Amino acid sequence: MTDSVYKLMEITGSSQTSMEDAIRLAVSRAAKTVHNLRWFEVLETRGHIEDQQIQYWQVTLKVGFTLDDTTS
Amino acid sequence: MTDSVYKLMEITGSSQTSMEDAIRLAVSRAAKTVHNLRWFEVLETRGHIEDQQIQYWQVTLKVGFTLDDTTS
Amino acid sequence: MTDSVYKLMEITGSSQTSMEDAIRLAVSRAAKTVHNLRWFEVLETRGHIEDQQIQYWQVTLKVGFTLDDTTS
Amino acid sequence: MTDSVYKLMEITGSSQTSMEDAIRLAVSRAAKTVHNLRWFEVLETRGHIEDQQIQYWQVTLKVGFTLDDTTS
Amino acid sequence: MTDSVYKLMEITGSSQTSMEDAIRLAVSRAAKTVHNLRWFEVLETRGHIEDQQIQYWQVTLKVGFTLDDTTS
Amino acid sequence: MTDSVYKLMEITGSSQTSMEDAIRLAVSRAAKTVHNLRWFEVLETRGHIEDQQIQYWQVTLKVGFTLDDTTS
Amino acid sequence: MTDSVYKLMEITGSSQTSMEDAIRLAVSRAAKTVHNLRWFEVLETRGHIEDQQIQYWQVTLKVGFTLDDTTS
Amino acid sequence: MTDSVYKLMEITGSSQTSMEDAIRLAVSRAAKTVHNLRWFEVLETRGHIEDQQIQYWQVTLKVGFTLDDTTS
Amino acid sequence: MTDSVYKLMEITGSSQTSMEDAIRLAVSRAAKTVHNLRWFEVLETRGHIEDQQIQYWQVTLKVGFTLDDTTS
Amino acid sequence: MTDSVYKLMEITGSSQTSMEDAIRLAVSRAAKTVHNLRWFEVLETRGHIEDQQIQYWQVTLKVGFTLDDTTS
Amino acid sequence: MTDSVYKLMEITGSSQTSMEDAIRLAVSRAAKTVHNLRWFEVLETRGHIEDQQIQYWQVTLKVGFTLDDTTS
Amino acid sequence: MTDSVYKLMEITGSSQTSMEDAIRLAVSRAAKTVHNLRWFEVLETRGHIEDQQIQYWQVTLKVGFTLDDTTS
Repeated sequence: MTDSVYKLMEITGSSQTSMEDAIRLAVSRAAKTVHNLRWFEVLETRGHIEDQQIQYWQVTLKVGFTLDDTTS
Repeated sequence: MTDSVYKLMEITGSSQTSMEDAIRLAVSRAAKTVHNLRWFEVLETRGHIEDQQIQYWQVTLKVGFTLDDTTS
Repeated sequence: MTDSVYKLMEITGSSQTSMEDAIRLAVSRAAKTVHNLRWFEVLETRGHIEDQQIQYWQVTLKVGFTLDDTTS
Repeated sequence: MTDSVYKLMEITGSSQTSMEDAIRLAVSRAAKTVHNLRWFEVLETRGHIEDQQIQYWQVTLKVGFTLDDTTS
Repeated sequence: MTDSVYKLMEITGSSQTSMEDAIRLAVSRAAKTVHNLRWFEVLETRGHIEDQQIQYWQVTLKVGFTLDDTTS
Repeated sequence: MTDSVYKLMEITGSSQTSMEDAIRLAVSRAAKTVHNLRWFEVLETRGHIEDQQIQYWQVTLKVGFTLDDTTS
Repeated sequence: MTDSVYKLMEITGSSQTSMEDAIRLAVSRAAKTVHNLRWFEVLETRGHIEDQQIQYWQVTLKVGFTLDDTTS
Repeated sequence: MTDSVYKLMEITGSSQTSMEDAIRLAVSRAAKTVHNLRWFEVLETRGHIEDQQIQYWQVTLKVGFTLDDTTS
Repeated sequence: MTDSVYKLMEITGSSQTSMEDAIRLAVSRAAKTVHNLRWFEVLETRGHIEDQQIQYWQVTLKVGFTLDDTTS
Repeated sequence: MTDSVYKLMEITGSSQTSMEDAIRLAVSRAAKTVHNLRWFEVLETRGHIEDQQIQYWQVTLKVGFTLDDTTS
Repeated sequence: MTDSVYKLMEITGSSQTSMEDAIRLAVSRAAKTVHNLRWFEVLETRGHIEDQQIQYWQVTLKVGFTLDDTTS
Repeated sequence: MTDSVYKLMEITGSSQTSMEDAIRLAVSRAAKTVHNLRWFEVLETRGHIEDQQIQYWQVTLKVGFTLDDTTS
């Protein structure tokens, strides 16, 4: 294993189902444009309320991924 | 859409089932006394332990709602 | 001057004009239902963007007021 | 014991005597308008100085109480 | 009830299933070596990603327990 | 409305005129490269001083935007 | 004086009398199982309320002590 | 350019006009007693309310300046 | 009342007696060199332990005072 | 000098040698894909331990760079 | 790899040489009493000054290790 | 040993060599104008980048010193 560098991005997933579903949505969307995802950390959990009920769970993540030579 | 003002209240839901259930309980209790709930943000997640097992999930929320002319 | 007690409320003002206007809106709305406002502190400054431009300045305040015997 | 919901309020007590007296004043004032107080947490301790001496100890609390069906 | 003292420990549970399962794992492991667990507080929620999917939910707790005379 | 994902970027606007102008500059520069800007949050307000006077107001924002299928 | 290593523990004292008494209780309980206590720092001050009055002052400390060769 | 050292001071400006005016007042007052002011950072924004209206905007800054050989 | 500027200093009082005594010591020492003290805020409460007992209560304050024309 | 806009990215450098080497690695990797780097700020310092010894120093930075017309 | 649980301890290393040496001292002391150290995070960096020079670098770490069946 | 009072100042050292050198520069500059320096705490670590390389390490300290009767 050699010295390496990771980049971090912030991303918010929004789901009608659950907090964990919001997180999975955010990670799978990040996986479309970035290779080598490594870890995430939850920064904030919020929700959107309509008609006096929770409509969306919104979870903001910091996601880390390995920078290889073809990534900017 | 016109300029508007929101008020925020803090409320803790407590549930034997799950974190999301504790949040839903808190929001539905707030809905009994306040109109026009708009969003929430999770401030703190705690739990009560008895007989070496989790008995209650306790989630504290900040909940925002629109102030209309009949609300104090 | 005698010993006294203050209560704090959180309130978000929203304005199309400026941050200071959002704060003034929040304070003047609070003044409708609470007597003896004393001070405020800015907790958070956010904005809503539509059509790639800022539509609303949203400032969240903590506002303190004196509790007299007729206030709950 | 059943699932339950707590509300939190912020309140500042001010006393010429001591920090603990400022806290007791705040709690006893809250007890006049809210039933079922359960706990408090100290958020901030400040003081007012006049003639180069401490005149008031000011302690800000977050106070939690049980929401029953008659409370808003 | 007499005056008492509590100790706090930090512990991270790691689960392939869910956040709540990670918390339960951490609490049940703590229960093996410490008596009289009383409460927990969530400090941090992270996750480990492999093959572009979440493999582990990792939740760090602060756990409080009563110190009796046989505990160090 | 369907489940969706937002990305957040951090950006600092610098203006000789005012804090709000620094924020507008940052948002309009972000609008050149990113579609569907949705909200911002102020993270930090600083200033640069020369010849004992404020030369630049520098405001750092976190800006959120919708991730669509053509965005990375 | 040589290079040395300190360990930190978190502990909550609970007293019916005062904040300082809660701190002294926590320190004297820690002194039963750990040698060479060196300093403490207050992390959190809370209280338990019953019958609308403060029953317990609860102060959480981080306590530092020297690690010698016989300590784990 | 050589290695150098900066000192930081905290100062609160108070203005009846605006937040930016409170900041400018604080910086110009600091400029009377300290040479070589370099930057500031906003730490806190508060206001004083009288007769249910904002009377003073109060902004607390951390201000940095170069330490030269004649400065203490 | 005119627009005005306040300066803040940080100071730690250390007392063998109590937390409030440590605060009073810090304020009275500040009063020797600075005119027009106005308020303080507690930043940190620590203690020094010797022979397994608290020897010193150490409280760090931020103290605000009015800047008049003769003060630097 | 004209008004300008900066963007910030977060990046983690990992080195077997030292904290400063981890920072330099992160900055030099950022320099491959971004022009006009201007400053960094350390957000977090961690380390990876294997066989009871530190194997990697991991430092997370926020790095600021000037946005010119060809940068997204 | 199966689900697992980690425990965290806080420890301060003190060295006359450098920050990194203080960290290494803390980790090697922890390694004497705990198996399976996995990572650390820097919480605080302080120093002790005597005769107007730095005598000790003091770095406080949170250290994580795997809990196996023989560890308490 | 008698009760005593400490004052704290904030100072930023800037060095082309290393973080520790920046800290030593700040402490030795403080030692020119203040007697009885006692401890420091690192508040912030930043760096200045030119030509895509680190030119200056900038470390901000809070430094504590004993207030004797001749010090203001």
